[in-house]
Amino acid sequence: MGEVVSNKKVTLKNFVTGFPKESDFEVTTSTISLKLPERSKKGVLVKNLYLSCDPYMRVLMTKADLYFPIDSYTPSEVICGYGVGKVLESRDPNLKEGDFVWGITGWEEYSVIEDPHQLFRINHHHDVPLSYYTGILGMPGVTAYFGFYDVCCPKEGEYVFVSAASGAVGQLVGQFAKSLGCYVVGSAGSQQKIDLLKNKFGFDDAFNYKEESDLNATLKRYFPKGIDIYFENVGGKMLDAVLGNMREHGRIGVCGMISQYNLEKPEGVHNLLNIILRRVRVQGFEVFDYYHRYSEFLDSVLPLIQARKLTLRRGHG
Amino acid sequence: MGEVVSNKKVTLKNFVTGFPKESDFEVTTSTISLKLPERSKKGVLVKNLYLSCDPYMRVLMTKADLYFPIDSYTPSEVICGYGVGKVLESRDPNLKEGDFVWGITGWEEYSVIEDPHQLFRINHHHDVPLSYYTGILGMPGVTAYFGFYDVCCPKEGEYVFVSAASGAVGQLVGQFAKSLGCYVVGSAGSQQKIDLLKNKFGFDDAFNYKEESDLNATLKRYFPKGIDIYFENVGGKMLDAVLGNMREHGRIGVCGMISQYNLEKPEGVHNLLNIILRRVRVQGFEVFDYYHRYSEFLDSVLPLIQARKLTLRRGHG
Repeated sequence: MGEVVSNKKVTLKNFVTGFPKESDFEVTTSTISLKLPERSKKGVLVKNLYLSCDPYMRVLMTKADLYFPIDSYTPSEVICGYGVGKVLESRDPNLKEGDFVWGITGWEEYSVIEDPHQLFRINHHHDVPLSYYTGILGMPGVTAYFGFYDVCCPKEGEYVFVSAASGAVGQLVGQFAKSLGCYVVGSAGSQQKIDLLKNKFGFDDAFNYKEESDLNATLKRYFPKGIDIYFENVGGKMLDAVLGNMREHGRIGVCGMISQYNLEKPEGVHNLLNIILRRVRVQGFEVFDYYHRYSEFLDSVLPLIQARKLTLRRGHG
Repeated sequence: MGEVVSNKKVTLKNFVTGFPKESDFEVTTSTISLKLPERSKKGVLVKNLYLSCDPYMRVLMTKADLYFPIDSYTPSEVICGYGVGKVLESRDPNLKEGDFVWGITGWEEYSVIEDPHQLFRINHHHDVPLSYYTGILGMPGVTAYFGFYDVCCPKEGEYVFVSAASGAVGQLVGQFAKSLGCYVVGSAGSQQKIDLLKNKFGFDDAFNYKEESDLNATLKRYFPKGIDIYFENVGGKMLDAVLGNMREHGRIGVCGMISQYNLEKPEGVHNLLNIILRRVRVQGFEVFDYYHRYSEFLDSVLPLIQARKLTLRRGHG
């Protein structure tokens, strides 16, 4: 029996309907022994240092078959999400005490992770803050990198549109696209975010979708020649408008549909015939399918960070 | 000036709204000189032998930007479509008098085709009827072949669903899928077509969508383990139901959406979030993009026809 400490945690009260409210969650404090339980076979005890709030978590708040390596949240249990932590004890041969890790952990101070296959050891680079492993070097970074390069198959000079562009993923997709010589426009929901996109993340242009009454006309204004690549984060009306503005052989990488997550019934999308007329490829993807290529990602992105050629800013999703 | 003969033709009276009616068309008879006009540079004069009525033609009856190598029909002019003909005179170096050709021609007895890049010479195989070049060896055959093998990337043992399955394309997709060792179910709109699918085309099972009140439940019944490949010919409600029944990493080859062609506003499709959750690829395609691989198609399909391993039947689309 190890030292017993208090463990503050966030639990889901009930499955969420509509927009999540603070009252859908509860912060409680229990205690935890800083020693893995006897019965734990390959468990890991982690002290959580950083936790990240990401859009996919809304999907886990609804009871559903998800086909994910993570299940829907269980009411009255701690919610899980991506974080960075330090290993206090490990029975997993791949991890040892003192290791820093990133991956799926609990929203609590200490977590016992029984099946740590979604926990990755950080080979710590001292010039990069640990918190980057919740962003550019973690799930959002891997999502943006493979979602853009692998799923969207970009070519220099192509016209790229990114929705939810100031989010953790979108801001990176835009920067990857610019570095490849694409023309990149982003959409977001406030003037502050639009300013960030244009002035900090280097997008060629950006617009506030909340101020546009006719998204089809908006896209025709920003893409008079049409869109080659749409990095889809929002779904619904924006997807419908994009479908009418794709170029032939265009690609839509479907990363998220955040505009739909709080709806009981998703909106209908009408312009799907354009998928045929313009020979569009619509490819859904999940970051889980790319973690085995993490070192490839790191080799490519870490030097860009160290040379300050990539910018990361959280809290603008 | 060559011999002048009468030339019966079908013209479009006006762009069509809703279901096409006989009164949207007109059959007229004019005359034609059986000699290419002086001004024709690389034109071809063709005597049309077979004409094919195909679903995409409905799309051409509406005024729209189509991104096709063929434009919308022009009111009061002859409508065009796929056919088989005999060359009477040619200024195209690739075609000569006496050649049989298949491709896009006019719905008339004789056509002058000024730009014959969608007209292909038939290296006539005497054991295959010429009419097959409007079907299994023509546009529907090439569509089914590349749409299935190239777009859907099938593997032995996969679960394949084909809508409009008794149509010229669907019946071939089902046979290709069976020959690869897939489990194939088709949908169609009459008992006669269902019988054809099961007894003549060798589908494992088939259902009449008009007799199903809950397509989601229907698909769960026919595909308890889900669908790996959906060969999409109809769109709308069927697509919505399929999206909820796809397996992870499933593929949807989008060939047509015939249920939507007569609607002024297409139906909304709601289940698109499944594209992410199940990592589905939705790929629109057009047969035009595959004609340069026609000889590859012919090498593969002609022996199957000659060995009577493929069945074709028209008039059940």
